Amino acid sequence: MALNVAQKLIQDHLVTGEMNPGEEIGLKIDQTLTQDATGTMVMLELEAMGIDRVKTEVSAQYVDHNLIQEDYRNPDDHIFLRSAAKKFGVHYSRPGNGVSHPVHMQELALPGKTLLGSDSHTCANGCMGMLAIGAGGVDVTMAMAGEPYHIKMPRVMGVELTGKMPDWVSAKDVILEMLRRHSVKGGVGKIIEYYGPGLDELSAMDRHVIANMGAELGATATVFPADGEIKRFMKTQGREDEWSELKADAGAEYDDHDQINLSELEPLVAKPTSPDNVVPVTELAGETIYQSYIGSSANPGYRDFAVASEMVKGRQIANGVSLDINPTSRQLLQQLVENGHIANLLSASARLHQAGCNGCIGMGQAPATGENSLRTVPRNFPGRSGTKEDKVFLCSPEIAAASALTGVITDPRTMDMPYPEIPEPASINAQEMLEAPAETNSEVELEKGPNVSTIPDFDPIPDDFDLPVLLKMGDNVSTDEILAGGSRVLPYRSNIPKISTFTFEGIDESYYERAQEKRDAGGHMVVGGFNYGQGSSREHAALAPRYLGLKVVLTKDFARIHLQNLINFGILPVTFVNEDDHELIEEGDILEFRNIHQTVQEHNTFDVKLKRSGDYIKVKHNMTHRQIDLLLAGGIINWVKERQ
Amino acid sequence: MALNVAQKLIQDHLVTGEMNPGEEIGLKIDQTLTQDATGTMVMLELEAMGIDRVKTEVSAQYVDHNLIQEDYRNPDDHIFLRSAAKKFGVHYSRPGNGVSHPVHMQELALPGKTLLGSDSHTCANGCMGMLAIGAGGVDVTMAMAGEPYHIKMPRVMGVELTGKMPDWVSAKDVILEMLRRHSVKGGVGKIIEYYGPGLDELSAMDRHVIANMGAELGATATVFPADGEIKRFMKTQGREDEWSELKADAGAEYDDHDQINLSELEPLVAKPTSPDNVVPVTELAGETIYQSYIGSSANPGYRDFAVASEMVKGRQIANGVSLDINPTSRQLLQQLVENGHIANLLSASARLHQAGCNGCIGMGQAPATGENSLRTVPRNFPGRSGTKEDKVFLCSPEIAAASALTGVITDPRTMDMPYPEIPEPASINAQEMLEAPAETNSEVELEKGPNVSTIPDFDPIPDDFDLPVLLKMGDNVSTDEILAGGSRVLPYRSNIPKISTFTFEGIDESYYERAQEKRDAGGHMVVGGFNYGQGSSREHAALAPRYLGLKVVLTKDFARIHLQNLINFGILPVTFVNEDDHELIEEGDILEFRNIHQTVQEHNTFDVKLKRSGDYIKVKHNMTHRQIDLLLAGGIINWVKERQ
Repeated sequence: MALNVAQKLIQDHLVTGEMNPGEEIGLKIDQTLTQDATGTMVMLELEAMGIDRVKTEVSAQYVDHNLIQEDYRNPDDHIFLRSAAKKFGVHYSRPGNGVSHPVHMQELALPGKTLLGSDSHTCANGCMGMLAIGAGGVDVTMAMAGEPYHIKMPRVMGVELTGKMPDWVSAKDVILEMLRRHSVKGGVGKIIEYYGPGLDELSAMDRHVIANMGAELGATATVFPADGEIKRFMKTQGREDEWSELKADAGAEYDDHDQINLSELEPLVAKPTSPDNVVPVTELAGETIYQSYIGSSANPGYRDFAVASEMVKGRQIANGVSLDINPTSRQLLQQLVENGHIANLLSASARLHQAGCNGCIGMGQAPATGENSLRTVPRNFPGRSGTKEDKVFLCSPEIAAASALTGVITDPRTMDMPYPEIPEPASINAQEMLEAPAETNSEVELEKGPNVSTIPDFDPIPDDFDLPVLLKMGDNVSTDEILAGGSRVLPYRSNIPKISTFTFEGIDESYYERAQEKRDAGGHMVVGGFNYGQGSSREHAALAPRYLGLKVVLTKDFARIHLQNLINFGILPVTFVNEDDHELIEEGDILEFRNIHQTVQEHNTFDVKLKRSGDYIKVKHNMTHRQIDLLLAGGIINWVKERQ
Repeated sequence: MALNVAQKLIQDHLVTGEMNPGEEIGLKIDQTLTQDATGTMVMLELEAMGIDRVKTEVSAQYVDHNLIQEDYRNPDDHIFLRSAAKKFGVHYSRPGNGVSHPVHMQELALPGKTLLGSDSHTCANGCMGMLAIGAGGVDVTMAMAGEPYHIKMPRVMGVELTGKMPDWVSAKDVILEMLRRHSVKGGVGKIIEYYGPGLDELSAMDRHVIANMGAELGATATVFPADGEIKRFMKTQGREDEWSELKADAGAEYDDHDQINLSELEPLVAKPTSPDNVVPVTELAGETIYQSYIGSSANPGYRDFAVASEMVKGRQIANGVSLDINPTSRQLLQQLVENGHIANLLSASARLHQAGCNGCIGMGQAPATGENSLRTVPRNFPGRSGTKEDKVFLCSPEIAAASALTGVITDPRTMDMPYPEIPEPASINAQEMLEAPAETNSEVELEKGPNVSTIPDFDPIPDDFDLPVLLKMGDNVSTDEILAGGSRVLPYRSNIPKISTFTFEGIDESYYERAQEKRDAGGHMVVGGFNYGQGSSREHAALAPRYLGLKVVLTKDFARIHLQNLINFGILPVTFVNEDDHELIEEGDILEFRNIHQTVQEHNTFDVKLKRSGDYIKVKHNMTHRQIDLLLAGGIINWVKERQ
């Protein structure tokens, strides 16, 4: 059977399941990528699982998110991550090397391999003929421990590219066109595969732009073939011999279809506050801007900066405009310096920032109140820039540079100059950016500052137990209410005992103290209504109450991701068979659970006794066998530990 | 009479007083410098005073401190400052142009002129043959309004430089030697004037290093002659025709004397946590470092970065070390890029940050817990880096670069290479960095984001009034207790109504509400003990309670700077004649003040009636006539407004 690129990648890595869209499959993971914001917990999980050394072919830890060091916490994390990388056999990328996705592409990406990363834009490396997927932290931990990654087999959507891009149109306009057509939900449950003669128009880094923002389409992954252009790119990196061809078989088919004639594209802009709010730049021309921002993994390439440099060369940006240049990797910054582009940008009055994620993730460079910010970044969700009610527009570097010069949103086709030709550098003259892991790791100690705390041991759920109900909640409790985000709480992401002090504080400030009291006396449970655990996917909303002794959550139903997180950390999630029984339970009640291990394995429905009244309450679960195994082991960490 | 450089500068600008050390003199101010952290309040004061246009020859507003934009507040300040600069006739330096002191030196400094700046390192421009003095915000506002600046005539300390600096010794070692000899109090009440044949060893920027850290000696100012080297420097800036010679007369004398034989210097380091804790680098060699930091106004020169670049060229810094490069100005960054130095530093794995103050003032780049940080910055007071109990060592770029390569504190003389020769660039190829003020300003509107608030009008103190005592405090109340600093409070520095909500919150949380209640009913007073208002000089500790209706502060005695701040903002400061009377007053008491205007002008001592008991309490003040004028006008803003 003729296979497309996505199917080939999956077939080569299929451990369990069949390649029928919607069916659960298990995939062998060859490479992993973690960044610092999610990586500390991944490393602590590896430690708690007792993993000596990762079982992937290549794992890499990048420091690119928390580069602003206002106190000891971020630098302590960097030191911890470096020691953990050394201990567990992971490549380490120091602060200043740049954004994980382009650095991984430059240094480690390989056609035909799978990559799982604890960052939603991990999909960017699909540009290299890889199956690259963003996932939650513990999923990546599991992959590093050698476990397969489970997903539902996606549909594969083929997008044929034809034609030639007009002057002043670039890769960003291709993905903005996809978002205009398909919306931020258009890629859900799909792998998007680009093919066709239009690929010749796109360099490897241009494809990175398009693959990166597959995340904004909601796609599981984006894949490109590993063709001659990828060979050329790898040659510039001195890695030509690692290249292998990967392309769709003649006659390969796709589950869904689309086609873009590049010749018909025009410069596009995504208006606030969604990446799919896309219009031609002409509709917005003339609107005053405060900021023009170039950089991020959504426009990481040499050409993305060089084209801006050529446009502003010998000119001055408008007074009052902040032109923020955010190099995406050390290597790229070196090339831009060498070829005179940084000089051009500085002379035009740009601000040059350190290489990293920076303002793209709200770490600095927030716009002023009520002012428009034009950015080449992938996302413009409300407040992501750091400023509430911000007005962030997504665009190409061409639009960003043209607008910086005029001070208003500007169609670059109106520039009084020919479209700059930017030859891709034939080779790079940069040192190795990554620190290779130690050959042996038995001697390496994890270096933990005061804010990095070992994950505590979690006992498996007992067979027979009584639990007091510490909270009785209504419908739609979000993970923000279970454990808040924000700058007050998130700096403790590597410190479970400390972060647990904030648990449920918005619902009941006395919860923490009451849970602490019951912790050594067998723990406690909480009761909720419909849609319990909606919102952010943060694992800490399960980890923190688990640390405080939470054993069971009984609700009317659960939000999908939080349900998985509860199971991952060994908390039994059950729902009322009769939703009205929610009324029978009061805060302070004690519920009796008996013979639980055998019961959940053999039955989906069982009875729990309400001690006060003697009533039996019927509850149910819908865990798979794999999930029940995880739960009864006491969670994923114990489960992996037992298998070492 | 033969005059030294300091005396010539003072004589040329003397408005009132005699040049006898210790006697109050008034000086005409030619130039002012404000940075963003202090500049917003200065601009709001100009607005409140009704000033149309500054009366100085040159005023410049720099944006170099608050460059980290985590939300709207800092960028709103930048926009406000730009509009205020335009309105009031001030040059504006946009974010990314770099640190005020070197940028001012490059663009505006002029031999023979006076410069007053709302930044303690304003003294750096003394390297240009200027009298450059750091002062409080309102002092600079007054200078911009055309008022003379009053100080006590300093003693002039002549420091003769002889000999030639050995290899691997540079300007930083000269000022560290001064700190080793004289301590952080050694310059108090003095102007330090360097002279002698050793000057030939020091470029203009080297002299900037030495003049800058005169602030750490506690000196009022540091002056160098405007000699041929200054002419050379100004020529590189295309400002040769603005140069004029300024040197001491033959036979000029000094009040105090010192001498440094440069040939005898060795590389020095100031250990934590004071700039005068100076030892030879050999004493510390071998200590592990986490960070090596190059930049700041204490080592702002081209050579300071170029020498580090030549040292790391073709090598790699130690794994685990963060080599943080902080360019001090756009112009300098451009030169370093052009001459290949930035390429060298990046290739060696340095982190390149935006041009600005950055980590020197605790804005990012904080070291990790318990780790050593080597920095070329001027100060290593505890916690200034952002990390509590930090260990910051001050040193030359030579020591910083040598140590980055080895990962331990390293004597650069042990480097296996000749000492790099760094020729000063003959000319620079950089655009104008400053935005000139508008020719006319009547049309210009101040642009105020939601966090920038006009300073409210303050009525003059009435003649007869009764005041309730809202707080009765003990001894040693600090300005931190009156109005806290830190990241929770300081972002509201441009917003008096908002920042006033934090007033006295550490002493009595109900104060704000109670003061608000009394505000329109005539205001209130507070009572304190000895040393009231000690600590930080922040003016907000007077402005915020003034906004809430504080009219009188009655204490056993006052800390010097807070006393002046109270007067500046129209609050009557009085002390008990009989300290035991402190016991007579209770919170809630009402005190009756009668015929106050005439009384304070004619008497230093007067009676106030305690309504509850009918007792009279004897109080006193020791204000000068100038201070009484300020007070009775309702503070300095009203006083200036009346004179427009």
